[in-house]
Amino acid sequence: MMKIAIINGPNLNLLGVREPAIYGNTAFDGFFAGLQEKYAGVAELTYFQSNHEGALIDHMQSIGFDYDGIVLNAGAYTHTSVAIADCISAICTPVIEVHISNVHSRESFRHHSMISAVCKGVIAGFGLDSYRLAIEALISR
Amino acid sequence: MMKIAIINGPNLNLLGVREPAIYGNTAFDGFFAGLQEKYAGVAELTYFQSNHEGALIDHMQSIGFDYDGIVLNAGAYTHTSVAIADCISAICTPVIEVHISNVHSRESFRHHSMISAVCKGVIAGFGLDSYRLAIEALISR
Amino acid sequence: MMKIAIINGPNLNLLGVREPAIYGNTAFDGFFAGLQEKYAGVAELTYFQSNHEGALIDHMQSIGFDYDGIVLNAGAYTHTSVAIADCISAICTPVIEVHISNVHSRESFRHHSMISAVCKGVIAGFGLDSYRLAIEALISR
Amino acid sequence: MMKIAIINGPNLNLLGVREPAIYGNTAFDGFFAGLQEKYAGVAELTYFQSNHEGALIDHMQSIGFDYDGIVLNAGAYTHTSVAIADCISAICTPVIEVHISNVHSRESFRHHSMISAVCKGVIAGFGLDSYRLAIEALISR
Amino acid sequence: MMKIAIINGPNLNLLGVREPAIYGNTAFDGFFAGLQEKYAGVAELTYFQSNHEGALIDHMQSIGFDYDGIVLNAGAYTHTSVAIADCISAICTPVIEVHISNVHSRESFRHHSMISAVCKGVIAGFGLDSYRLAIEALISR
Amino acid sequence: MMKIAIINGPNLNLLGVREPAIYGNTAFDGFFAGLQEKYAGVAELTYFQSNHEGALIDHMQSIGFDYDGIVLNAGAYTHTSVAIADCISAICTPVIEVHISNVHSRESFRHHSMISAVCKGVIAGFGLDSYRLAIEALISR
Amino acid sequence: MMKIAIINGPNLNLLGVREPAIYGNTAFDGFFAGLQEKYAGVAELTYFQSNHEGALIDHMQSIGFDYDGIVLNAGAYTHTSVAIADCISAICTPVIEVHISNVHSRESFRHHSMISAVCKGVIAGFGLDSYRLAIEALISR
Amino acid sequence: MMKIAIINGPNLNLLGVREPAIYGNTAFDGFFAGLQEKYAGVAELTYFQSNHEGALIDHMQSIGFDYDGIVLNAGAYTHTSVAIADCISAICTPVIEVHISNVHSRESFRHHSMISAVCKGVIAGFGLDSYRLAIEALISR
Amino acid sequence: MMKIAIINGPNLNLLGVREPAIYGNTAFDGFFAGLQEKYAGVAELTYFQSNHEGALIDHMQSIGFDYDGIVLNAGAYTHTSVAIADCISAICTPVIEVHISNVHSRESFRHHSMISAVCKGVIAGFGLDSYRLAIEALISR
Amino acid sequence: MMKIAIINGPNLNLLGVREPAIYGNTAFDGFFAGLQEKYAGVAELTYFQSNHEGALIDHMQSIGFDYDGIVLNAGAYTHTSVAIADCISAICTPVIEVHISNVHSRESFRHHSMISAVCKGVIAGFGLDSYRLAIEALISR
Amino acid sequence: MMKIAIINGPNLNLLGVREPAIYGNTAFDGFFAGLQEKYAGVAELTYFQSNHEGALIDHMQSIGFDYDGIVLNAGAYTHTSVAIADCISAICTPVIEVHISNVHSRESFRHHSMISAVCKGVIAGFGLDSYRLAIEALISR
Amino acid sequence: MMKIAIINGPNLNLLGVREPAIYGNTAFDGFFAGLQEKYAGVAELTYFQSNHEGALIDHMQSIGFDYDGIVLNAGAYTHTSVAIADCISAICTPVIEVHISNVHSRESFRHHSMISAVCKGVIAGFGLDSYRLAIEALISR
Repeated sequence: MMKIAIINGPNLNLLGVREPAIYGNTAFDGFFAGLQEKYAGVAELTYFQSNHEGALIDHMQSIGFDYDGIVLNAGAYTHTSVAIADCISAICTPVIEVHISNVHSRESFRHHSMISAVCKGVIAGFGLDSYRLAIEALISR
Repeated sequence: MMKIAIINGPNLNLLGVREPAIYGNTAFDGFFAGLQEKYAGVAELTYFQSNHEGALIDHMQSIGFDYDGIVLNAGAYTHTSVAIADCISAICTPVIEVHISNVHSRESFRHHSMISAVCKGVIAGFGLDSYRLAIEALISR
Repeated sequence: MMKIAIINGPNLNLLGVREPAIYGNTAFDGFFAGLQEKYAGVAELTYFQSNHEGALIDHMQSIGFDYDGIVLNAGAYTHTSVAIADCISAICTPVIEVHISNVHSRESFRHHSMISAVCKGVIAGFGLDSYRLAIEALISR
Repeated sequence: MMKIAIINGPNLNLLGVREPAIYGNTAFDGFFAGLQEKYAGVAELTYFQSNHEGALIDHMQSIGFDYDGIVLNAGAYTHTSVAIADCISAICTPVIEVHISNVHSRESFRHHSMISAVCKGVIAGFGLDSYRLAIEALISR
Repeated sequence: MMKIAIINGPNLNLLGVREPAIYGNTAFDGFFAGLQEKYAGVAELTYFQSNHEGALIDHMQSIGFDYDGIVLNAGAYTHTSVAIADCISAICTPVIEVHISNVHSRESFRHHSMISAVCKGVIAGFGLDSYRLAIEALISR
Repeated sequence: MMKIAIINGPNLNLLGVREPAIYGNTAFDGFFAGLQEKYAGVAELTYFQSNHEGALIDHMQSIGFDYDGIVLNAGAYTHTSVAIADCISAICTPVIEVHISNVHSRESFRHHSMISAVCKGVIAGFGLDSYRLAIEALISR
Repeated sequence: MMKIAIINGPNLNLLGVREPAIYGNTAFDGFFAGLQEKYAGVAELTYFQSNHEGALIDHMQSIGFDYDGIVLNAGAYTHTSVAIADCISAICTPVIEVHISNVHSRESFRHHSMISAVCKGVIAGFGLDSYRLAIEALISR
Repeated sequence: MMKIAIINGPNLNLLGVREPAIYGNTAFDGFFAGLQEKYAGVAELTYFQSNHEGALIDHMQSIGFDYDGIVLNAGAYTHTSVAIADCISAICTPVIEVHISNVHSRESFRHHSMISAVCKGVIAGFGLDSYRLAIEALISR
Repeated sequence: MMKIAIINGPNLNLLGVREPAIYGNTAFDGFFAGLQEKYAGVAELTYFQSNHEGALIDHMQSIGFDYDGIVLNAGAYTHTSVAIADCISAICTPVIEVHISNVHSRESFRHHSMISAVCKGVIAGFGLDSYRLAIEALISR
Repeated sequence: MMKIAIINGPNLNLLGVREPAIYGNTAFDGFFAGLQEKYAGVAELTYFQSNHEGALIDHMQSIGFDYDGIVLNAGAYTHTSVAIADCISAICTPVIEVHISNVHSRESFRHHSMISAVCKGVIAGFGLDSYRLAIEALISR
Repeated sequence: MMKIAIINGPNLNLLGVREPAIYGNTAFDGFFAGLQEKYAGVAELTYFQSNHEGALIDHMQSIGFDYDGIVLNAGAYTHTSVAIADCISAICTPVIEVHISNVHSRESFRHHSMISAVCKGVIAGFGLDSYRLAIEALISR
Repeated sequence: MMKIAIINGPNLNLLGVREPAIYGNTAFDGFFAGLQEKYAGVAELTYFQSNHEGALIDHMQSIGFDYDGIVLNAGAYTHTSVAIADCISAICTPVIEVHISNVHSRESFRHHSMISAVCKGVIAGFGLDSYRLAIEALISR
């Protein structure tokens, strides 16, 4: 069975609370439970969220030589973190960048990603379904 | 049953011939036949390819008030065409932007897309599987 | 009697359909018939629309050594086409650039025109009336 | 009867004297008298010119809740004045930006206008006839 | 008793009239009378407004070797005037830059101030209360 | 009674130690005690400082649906943190950006703030008095 | 015998008509006949011209796995077409970029070529002789 | 006898008062009297100063078809005024740009002059002696 | 005896694991033990590594008024952290910036360092020997 | 008989030694002897190489009013030397810019040439054959 | 008696030959003899010209701790040489930058000077008279 | 025994004379003698200085296939010379870039080095000790 980690960056713990017009109003916990159920026999899913750039790096390092895939929504650090990009380059597990909203139709500082170039692929704009599509992509590799 | 169009832009008729290190060596025809079979009872899939910017616009206008989704790989026109972006804004059918390769790890002029902002979502970097993921996304909307 | 051509670029065949908040909801055909009637004894008006950059150039070359004026709404190609600008420089007929909406109050990539410098003048922001004002300008030259 | 103001900015009092290759050699006074005569029963035309940015603003404020239209050639302030743009936003009377020459075929610092985005429309490149076309546009609104 | 001048730049005479969504709908005269009353025994307040860049400089020069503080809302000249910045450097009276709205959440050309670097401090975004806070800051120096 | 939080970002725990020419030599603790005393019956003041971007976000999330105001000196993160800006957008409590020094007369990389656009207002350049003015602004809202 | 194609882009069908000061006044047809004669026993020369970007790509794809060389004057598309550059990368036949005029002494937007990096070489500024030099270069490879 | 005008722009009426480290501490009046005396039999010198951009233009227009030379220190307007540059182009009298300090060793926004390109020459950095050198240059033309 | 701290930033705990072509394959622990032995009687060496920007600042503050030197490889934070730069300015201990690889021959976003300007010196490109050279430099000061 | 000079700039004396993957491994001396033989009755060829910008200028001045053509490979000075460009403008002999490699497919700082605008034409990317093609071009002028 | 050196940079030995429309047609030798005569009892004038950046630096170093002034027309090196600027900073003799033509009305790459900031003053646009004015300026210091 | 060359670029012959606040006041000759003595049995040191870019290249070419290391302080040419960078690429001897001062805390045009990318490493900011550290680095390779 595959091991796949879902990792959320800063402020994504507020999903369902924060700017519902953009991020929808589903709390992430229930959504994650649904994903675990759906992929029960196929993939073991784990979940980690942090507002700390360093904590995200610590976590990716701890699983990144062992897991079969990481689905990463780095939130605001997507646009500023060279350190997370370096971490993705350093580990062995393939990483897929996901975004809930279509970042290209929001503010211009969200159009550039520091991490896309070192990820395997990018999926953006499908709401929470972006996470499911990323898992599908990892399974079909 | 849903009606979904797959549209490929310039030079994508050379898939399987052109730069296989980047685009893989599967000819698109066989791949498309497989997709049609897979989604037989769910979605009617059509396919159109052209090297002409105007022909892509003509085609999208002709189906864009009628279909349930368009999966568009605009190829090089992704980076230069305001006219295709205007067309996407003008029609009613939702459009998903796909790319075979991870455009963000290629030349810098491929990092900017003129059409992302007016598409519903973006999927890039999963080889031909990017097209299948886009269909999945349209179905689960 | 003067010979004046009205030429519309990509997506302008959708006038009355596309984004009515910006372009109004008058279909162009009826409007053009009205213009022909109004200028019946003064100018012979012809109309051409295409979504193809090359077709616009072919047409302008075919009439551009013969007509007394061209009223050109190049649509999205306004912002990207060096080839249309070269064509305007190469022909003898004076060309007037028109826009239905005030392009300067829209997205920033619509603020720059590749063709203004080689046109005789620019008229923008008066809805379909922009075309009539351009004809007036050609007549009073 | 409509009330329409024609306002000229800095150095336009030298029309007929200054760089005739660009601005023609018709003095503006005679031209304005002709316009008044032509639109006698339709619109009451007034004229104001100043080299002072502040005086242009004072004048537009004083008429800008009362007139039916302003035809503004802001001259060099077109390219530098945020204050005039703010004034146009603040008043109720619609403003049309005009230029005698085609500013886009002159020096590059003349290609950007600070005020286009807040004007109703732009007319440039038709010599003094630009003013007449602007009046036509106001009347047909 | 301290002498403090409040100086408003272009279009701020339209407060209460212009774009009430941004600037509120309190006329400045009444507000200023209230300030005078509030600080009656502490500071003598004077008020000056002009749409003319040069007149603002003339006024600041005339009081700028004598007053204890200037509260300056330079309006649109904030973003374009080197001359007002030079004037602030040249005089002895400390100047505080104020803005009614939060200029950083408006158009991008309002994000840069030519005068911030030579003012003592900046207060923006508190509506008319920005002026009162600036007076408080001057008194507590 | 209002609840107001004062939050200081990286290196501001060194106030009174670090570069006294810029930041003055008052330790923040004593100053904060004075503020608490001054606003005793009006507002309950709390204080938090951290050098960790993530810890600042955690703290703002924990109080940001409950307090009446936040006075934030984000220090160096002012200029780099999209994540703190996202946090300010996500919470309900209004945030006021303060700076001890006039950041616009220091190094150019300090002239741009990532957070100004999502704060209610900005106060900069009044030394520690900037904090008091921000509290005044919150109270008078 | 070698097979070499000469391909001309937009507006080059007007050679001898368009801006003779820049492009000379020799019609291309006679010049091409002369080339065919000169290289009769050495190389078979074909000629194609189109104003359509897509047609140029179609043609290059149809001959590009078969010919020994392509001499391409892409005209205005030189400066804007990522799609033609992609086509040149995808085909096997070596392509030489030629220009009649010295593009570097004309307008600045003609200084950058999108296709130089994927061509074998560049020859510019020798009038129609640029085409002959390119054929010489292909023969001596 | 030649007629030469010396014109000073904004804040230069504070010479001798303002930032003496940069501008010296000689009041301009005494200096001008000395110049008049020195060139008594050779040139008639006049002097004009204003803080108003429009007033400088009014003055240059009034003398600019009649005088033999203008020595212009446009102060801060040097860096922002397209209108003064247009005025210099429009009049017949040759204009020499002078600066008291070496503007190139001051802030970077003072390194670019809007007016140099339309002046006959530039003299900067010699203190008040810059004015005398400019008169010398006019006399020896 | 001198007290010198070696501090490593994000992902440098993976040395010997991560991209050995760039960073070599020596684990840092053994290397550090060798350094301690080499400088036994001369300098007391300590070592700290963290992936957290805030933790690096906390650590530098805690030793930065007491140690004789800090050898800092800030890793990816080199290119993004204003906060670490502020910390270096605030403490008394001199800091030397080191890099294992020659950052100038890698990606362009690694060419700019936020911290070089506030460090005493920079040593880059000598593999792990960069650390030893920095210690030598501190000893010979 | 024509007199044609071949001039090579810095580091081109290392041809055959330096980076053979880019510049080939033919020493220039033998190649030049072959050219002299080939054009024996048609053109007198001379050769000059220097690593000194000034020496290249000295040489071009000494022959530049006398020779029929100069074939110049300015090497690295191509991208930085305004002085060589000025020299080419000043002399009478036409100059052709050549490059051995296709500079447009190398580092971006090699994409811009300071001298192209003042040369008659440019030939790049044909190895040493670039020099022969330049001679052909000069002869057929 | 003062010792003043006139130094000319690259291509200025061609004065009278090179582009007479810009530089005039007076050979510099005769002009220099005239200057020597004019300032016979006041200043000893020497002259040096070189096309070599290094030779200009050698010469300025050799006289720069001894002479009373240097009049430098660095020609094209004005726009590119940090080394000459460093030399001017290092020596004691004041340097005045002169240009024959008004560099600001020529190509844009001539608008920026690398050396203005370290010179005492700048004189440009007066033909050869620029040199005389510079000597006047040095004498009157 | 190793052969190591120390090479200094323009104006570094003035060490001890020029701007002692930045470069110290030790003349380089005495310092070099000390280095020779220190490394007597280990490395043979040679020294070369020139103000001529071409002479630096000539020298590096003459030793660059033979020596074991070059310690290069290219002075101002660091920031402008593509030719020196090409030379470093072309030779076999490894080159280490050194600077006496910390160039990153000086003027911004000194922050970019044209040669860092092709050097083995960079050492900056340790005064003359930078040269010694570079020799240490070469010895320990």
